[in-house]
Amino acid sequence: MSGSTKYVYDFDEGNAKMKNLLGGKGSNLAEMTNLGLPVPPGFTITTEACNYFTDTGRYPEGLHEEIDVHLAKLEARLGKKLGNPGNPLLVSVRSGAPISMPGMMDTVLNLGLNDESLQGLIAQTGDERFAYDAYRRFIQMFSDIVLEVKRSFFEEELTRKKQERGVGLDVELTAKDWKELVEKFKAIVKERGGKDFPGAPREQLDLAIRAVFESWGNPRAKLYRKTYDISDSLGTAVNVQTMVFGNMGETSATGVCFSRDPSTGQRRRYGEFLINAQGEDVVAGIRTPHSMDQMAEELPEVYAELEAAMEKLERHYQDMQDMEFTVERGKLYMLQTRNGKRTAAAALRIAVEMVEEGLIDKKVALTRIQPEQLDQLLHPRLDPERDYEVIVTGLPASPGAAVGKVVFDCDAAEQKSQAGEKVILVRYETTPDDLHGIIAAQGVLTSHGGMTSHAAVVARGMGKPCIAGAEAMKINMQEHIFEVNGLVVREGDVITIDGASGKVILGEAELIEPRVDKNLERILGWADELRTMKVRTNADTPEDARRAREFGAEGIGLCRTEHMFLGEDRLPLVRDMILAETDGERQEALNALEPKLREDFKGIFMAMDGLPVTIRLLDPPLHEFLPNLMDLRVEMEELKHTPGERADFEEKEKLYHKVRAEHEVNPMLGMRGCRVGISIPGVTRMQVQAIMEAACDLRHEGLDPHVEIMVPLVGFLKELQAEKEEIIAAAEKVIGERCVTIPFTVGTMIELPRAALTAAEIATEAQFFSFGTNDLTQTTLGFSRDDAEGKFLPIYLSKGILPYNPFATLDFDGVGKLMKMAAAAGREVRHDLKLGICGEHGGDPQSVRFCYEMGLDYVSCSPFRVPLARLAAAQAVLGKVEDATK
Amino acid sequence: MSGSTKYVYDFDEGNAKMKNLLGGKGSNLAEMTNLGLPVPPGFTITTEACNYFTDTGRYPEGLHEEIDVHLAKLEARLGKKLGNPGNPLLVSVRSGAPISMPGMMDTVLNLGLNDESLQGLIAQTGDERFAYDAYRRFIQMFSDIVLEVKRSFFEEELTRKKQERGVGLDVELTAKDWKELVEKFKAIVKERGGKDFPGAPREQLDLAIRAVFESWGNPRAKLYRKTYDISDSLGTAVNVQTMVFGNMGETSATGVCFSRDPSTGQRRRYGEFLINAQGEDVVAGIRTPHSMDQMAEELPEVYAELEAAMEKLERHYQDMQDMEFTVERGKLYMLQTRNGKRTAAAALRIAVEMVEEGLIDKKVALTRIQPEQLDQLLHPRLDPERDYEVIVTGLPASPGAAVGKVVFDCDAAEQKSQAGEKVILVRYETTPDDLHGIIAAQGVLTSHGGMTSHAAVVARGMGKPCIAGAEAMKINMQEHIFEVNGLVVREGDVITIDGASGKVILGEAELIEPRVDKNLERILGWADELRTMKVRTNADTPEDARRAREFGAEGIGLCRTEHMFLGEDRLPLVRDMILAETDGERQEALNALEPKLREDFKGIFMAMDGLPVTIRLLDPPLHEFLPNLMDLRVEMEELKHTPGERADFEEKEKLYHKVRAEHEVNPMLGMRGCRVGISIPGVTRMQVQAIMEAACDLRHEGLDPHVEIMVPLVGFLKELQAEKEEIIAAAEKVIGERCVTIPFTVGTMIELPRAALTAAEIATEAQFFSFGTNDLTQTTLGFSRDDAEGKFLPIYLSKGILPYNPFATLDFDGVGKLMKMAAAAGREVRHDLKLGICGEHGGDPQSVRFCYEMGLDYVSCSPFRVPLARLAAAQAVLGKVEDATK
Repeated sequence: MSGSTKYVYDFDEGNAKMKNLLGGKGSNLAEMTNLGLPVPPGFTITTEACNYFTDTGRYPEGLHEEIDVHLAKLEARLGKKLGNPGNPLLVSVRSGAPISMPGMMDTVLNLGLNDESLQGLIAQTGDERFAYDAYRRFIQMFSDIVLEVKRSFFEEELTRKKQERGVGLDVELTAKDWKELVEKFKAIVKERGGKDFPGAPREQLDLAIRAVFESWGNPRAKLYRKTYDISDSLGTAVNVQTMVFGNMGETSATGVCFSRDPSTGQRRRYGEFLINAQGEDVVAGIRTPHSMDQMAEELPEVYAELEAAMEKLERHYQDMQDMEFTVERGKLYMLQTRNGKRTAAAALRIAVEMVEEGLIDKKVALTRIQPEQLDQLLHPRLDPERDYEVIVTGLPASPGAAVGKVVFDCDAAEQKSQAGEKVILVRYETTPDDLHGIIAAQGVLTSHGGMTSHAAVVARGMGKPCIAGAEAMKINMQEHIFEVNGLVVREGDVITIDGASGKVILGEAELIEPRVDKNLERILGWADELRTMKVRTNADTPEDARRAREFGAEGIGLCRTEHMFLGEDRLPLVRDMILAETDGERQEALNALEPKLREDFKGIFMAMDGLPVTIRLLDPPLHEFLPNLMDLRVEMEELKHTPGERADFEEKEKLYHKVRAEHEVNPMLGMRGCRVGISIPGVTRMQVQAIMEAACDLRHEGLDPHVEIMVPLVGFLKELQAEKEEIIAAAEKVIGERCVTIPFTVGTMIELPRAALTAAEIATEAQFFSFGTNDLTQTTLGFSRDDAEGKFLPIYLSKGILPYNPFATLDFDGVGKLMKMAAAAGREVRHDLKLGICGEHGGDPQSVRFCYEMGLDYVSCSPFRVPLARLAAAQAVLGKVEDATK
Repeated sequence: MSGSTKYVYDFDEGNAKMKNLLGGKGSNLAEMTNLGLPVPPGFTITTEACNYFTDTGRYPEGLHEEIDVHLAKLEARLGKKLGNPGNPLLVSVRSGAPISMPGMMDTVLNLGLNDESLQGLIAQTGDERFAYDAYRRFIQMFSDIVLEVKRSFFEEELTRKKQERGVGLDVELTAKDWKELVEKFKAIVKERGGKDFPGAPREQLDLAIRAVFESWGNPRAKLYRKTYDISDSLGTAVNVQTMVFGNMGETSATGVCFSRDPSTGQRRRYGEFLINAQGEDVVAGIRTPHSMDQMAEELPEVYAELEAAMEKLERHYQDMQDMEFTVERGKLYMLQTRNGKRTAAAALRIAVEMVEEGLIDKKVALTRIQPEQLDQLLHPRLDPERDYEVIVTGLPASPGAAVGKVVFDCDAAEQKSQAGEKVILVRYETTPDDLHGIIAAQGVLTSHGGMTSHAAVVARGMGKPCIAGAEAMKINMQEHIFEVNGLVVREGDVITIDGASGKVILGEAELIEPRVDKNLERILGWADELRTMKVRTNADTPEDARRAREFGAEGIGLCRTEHMFLGEDRLPLVRDMILAETDGERQEALNALEPKLREDFKGIFMAMDGLPVTIRLLDPPLHEFLPNLMDLRVEMEELKHTPGERADFEEKEKLYHKVRAEHEVNPMLGMRGCRVGISIPGVTRMQVQAIMEAACDLRHEGLDPHVEIMVPLVGFLKELQAEKEEIIAAAEKVIGERCVTIPFTVGTMIELPRAALTAAEIATEAQFFSFGTNDLTQTTLGFSRDDAEGKFLPIYLSKGILPYNPFATLDFDGVGKLMKMAAAAGREVRHDLKLGICGEHGGDPQSVRFCYEMGLDYVSCSPFRVPLARLAAAQAVLGKVEDATK
């Protein structure tokens, strides 16, 4: 084996494509080196070496010697030597995995110092204070990471020294103070670690490399990988790099910069730096950093060099870069570059402008936008340009902003909401018992719980804004107040919450309504040119249909008629229909409902003139239209105790018994969908009549309605046959009477496993399949969404049993497998079978990609998600959707 | 085409194997003819001719001529001619489909008579009265079937004649009366049918053949085929056969006989006959028929010939025969033979004795028992040997007998049952609102509704006796009585119902307890020799385990621990466990439960010593162990109105809120199965501890427990991993402490579609799969059993949307497909994966066959169904289970 595997690469031996072997940091350092940028030289030990170490607890054969060789080369190149008292080489030892795991693993700086080489550093720099400070930093960091002597012992000592010296800041300590501290630190190591601090630099290096290897397996890194589904077998690389110092006086500096503004996308100077500081000082935020404009003034030559490097890197990577640099006594060093994170607005602007600049083409531009980011733009939100008085910030648990009065109690939330008031529910955390409060509120704010807490999961499921874990907020339930930094907010006070940023604002903030701006419009235009899969919308009202069409919807994939059975002019008729004791009574109720539905359909067809509209026949369990059984029972009980209300009691009791007869143990799996149409005469006929009358009315007005009638919850071919027969008879009757031609098709939802399993049979009758993945997920996984999202799903997500919420992103291995089986079997029987998806997954980018790959004709999603789906459908063609769960 | 297809076969041209072409009757007539038995000669027109007629409305080319040829041959053979005034040939024209459809299609007798040939008949027989009677019967039958002149017009005329003549019976009418009636009948035909009765016999024959062809498509035949899933494309054959007459005086007779007693199986004379009668007279039941013993006395020579024919046929068909015969003036004719229907007891005795007689071998014997029939023997039932005073008979809707007090109200049923009384629920019919009454009752009796009525379906589902549609019973709900034939039965009176026979008896009848008699034991012994699939039982108690072992169970396939969480010494602890506010409180409850479960497991392991016991960890939704939410709410309301109960109210309210937090919208798909074990610390550990402690106790006593621990409701590999980890840790802890070796395996239920779809992954951890087909049916079909069986399932069955109840017999195309996928994928990954089924389908013969064919290692069913499953498993090997749905 020895000699056959290369475990160490000089920076000039690698490149950006060797990420798996050299890690993200190592491969980018190599790339920058090859570009001729000023990177402090060094070498990278591969992930393969790490994996070997993880498996066996020791270096692979030959590694030690290979390190020696590369170290010698580095020393020769720089004319310095590790540990040399005359001209010592100092290095940093850093982890760098193929996938970034920020803060998870260890770093050691200033390695190579000991009592002897320290003298060399003093000689090199002429700065004793700096050298002792560097030495004590090294001892502290090395001891913590390698020797497992806790950082706090050293910090206590440092604090004691400052008190003793009567100063507040580290910078006020002198060289002598640091020198004394170095001795104290070494004593701590001996006392706590049981032996002397290791003085031999080559031993220091091995110990540090081993510590980095070991940090791959530390519990927090393991948990992180489990959470983000990163394979344990990747391993981390180790970068050994010459130290450069930004804290060598007024011509030294350290900073970060971006090649464009990551917040707006504008091409301008953006970044910050500190004179005479090390990287950790910038992060610690003790001193306020300066802007790039200031750097251009203060260090003009270095800045010009940096600007050229930025330009070069952006051109090279063809993307906006986020860079770290250090200036050591007037010389610039580039320490890191990577594609910069950016807001949705910035992502759009950068993509569009880079195309205009000829830097990238349209296809590449499309891959630069995370579809999920568009969600930020397509909800009401705070204006990022304005300053708000933020009273507390929590976790951004569910995007969108909302304004309302504070309530602490769920029943109160329900009552106020019913009285027309907008409320924000504020809780310590929520439980399933609070569901009615969440439903009633505009948004939810909790002081505890994380991104997968009950409140967060439920609110995201409902598309409501939510901020979780705003821990600075102290809730006093007795007094109905919360306190935050001394400010008291009372029940009834108005607040604004922004679930995308986690910000809470006192009072009513003006919100930005979602809109498609010109950058988004151009990107979506490019997406439309590229994509082959259509995007429709789920819309039940003319308003939603109009809005969705503005967002680019190419038809309706799901128009649910149940919406039309609600409303105070309808519900009493619907109840009559359900509780009718004779066919005559029922028909009377149906006759009264039909013209009302017809008007709704007219509005929808008008909004979607010329585009297909898929109408799903009545689907929900009937008792959803009836009074609540428990409420009735309680009202009965109350009437029983009210003297002289005998007649009322008896009427209530009668109603109670009727409603009880409709009651179901598992309504999701009960009398709903086509089972209603098949069991209750006239319900299907009435709906079809209303649809076709509406279509005929519009046809007479010269419009062009495209009708697709969809039968819900089919599991057996004969169900579809029975319903289709009734649909065709009712439709042809209307068409015959109205003397016009209305082409229409009849298809079915595929939302039960059995429908997917017998798709070949069902396709003999269905002209289209629409995958109802909400219900298909419920039945395939045996998850009642109403129960799961509030109960075991958060537990499953936190324990890593599920990688993500299967109601948001398709369960590819289970539900997806059924979908593929059904699509293939259906198309085998009927080559022109139209295939779509109308579950909420139709608006999820990863699921959209899956739908494209399995050959669906369209996805359908809520109006606000249409732009996102258009982009995702284009990215699917490019095969480049990032896996959002990673 | 003409000449190439043969459409007509003389009886001596066919045989018993040509059922599809010649129909059941035709092929058996041919077989008897070939055996040399005295069959009146004739010919059969094939089903192919019928199908051609059905498609085109006319005879196929050449058929008319072929009939002419065969008719001429028949005439030549008998020396008679159709319509010949001197020596007329009379024939019957009967339908005969490949699958028997009793009473569905048409028959014409005495065809060939007209005014001229009548004279020939008089001359032939010397019996004018007989001849006119025959003529009027022919006119009546032919007119009804061929000319569509209703039978009732003729019957009115006959009644009028009898009144006119002052007689009560047909036999009292004279030749003159019949002659006059013939003229009247012809007048009716002319008046109602618009033309003269057709006199030309060859035309009569064609009209009758066409009428039989057409009767294949009549609505009642179509409905029958739809109901029994018989293909419309089979068609019916038509048999044209020489008439013989049993009503030609005292040496003529007609009758039916069996080669063995169909009720007991004994080899003895069995049958009945009537002197001087036609077949329809026997059926009409106007005269009381005589026994075979009497026939042996009265017509000894003919009887000897008949006995020889019986013997010959039984030997030939190697099965008990049910035969029809006619004696015309001392000459025996065999008209029909078929395998006789028989009781379960008879089937067993016949099969065993035929093997002893060397007539059949054991394998054939096994195919002669319908497993479903055993169900009759394995429920408590009425003694068929005893006479009971039956007050009314209804439809045998769900087998088993029960004794109890009559109640008419479901709430009363519940109260009395809770007070320890046994009740029979008596209703007009039941609705879903009556479910609690059905649950509380020993059995159900309804005056309305059929075999698929709500009461019938629900009771069968619950395994409770039910008699439906006892229409002679008049229920008076106001007075809480029912009246039947003048007898008044009051609420509280004791009745006995036998759901296998539909009989209702006043008072408490002594019931036969189910047992395995010696014939059954021999059959099951032969079954055990043959079958390769094991039969286990579903048992939750030591008693059930013992009983099942007596019935031949080879282990427990499903022992549900939830049973052990009930009972008054446990439920309070279980509630503490669920409602615990701290881990400490919960652990305390668990600690108290563990020894109680341990005792249960000891009893079960003891009963199943040396055999495998699969224990399923706690599965049901937790709120099943909590008080009913609505009851709590009502109790709260009551306390609110009770002065001075403030403290009680508050306590109740607190409990209410806790229970409400556990409440679920769709409990079937909620917090249950492994989700409980994963979410609530300690629940799995406690169960495993109890199981392993019990096993260790027994091992120390020298017994041999085989432990299989089964994780319920797994959908994701990680669920099984998490549970398995905890199981193994808990088990090994006990084993280590107790210093014994207890081999155990860990497996999972496959009861969610996702588990089946990802079986390859799950099999990497599961040592066995047990298909939980009850839940798998619920999720695959999206049918909540609780809701479906009371609501839409009866509608679906009656409309033919489903061919059978998928909770009784596996849905092969949907659920079965998933099972096959899972079994194949699982075995691919783990070659020794043990596969079983523990849903109720494990006791259904068709499903057992399916399980055998897909390669399961065992089926598991309720104790009483074990014998049935043993037989079905043997028949599966023989591939000869009859399709019970046909």
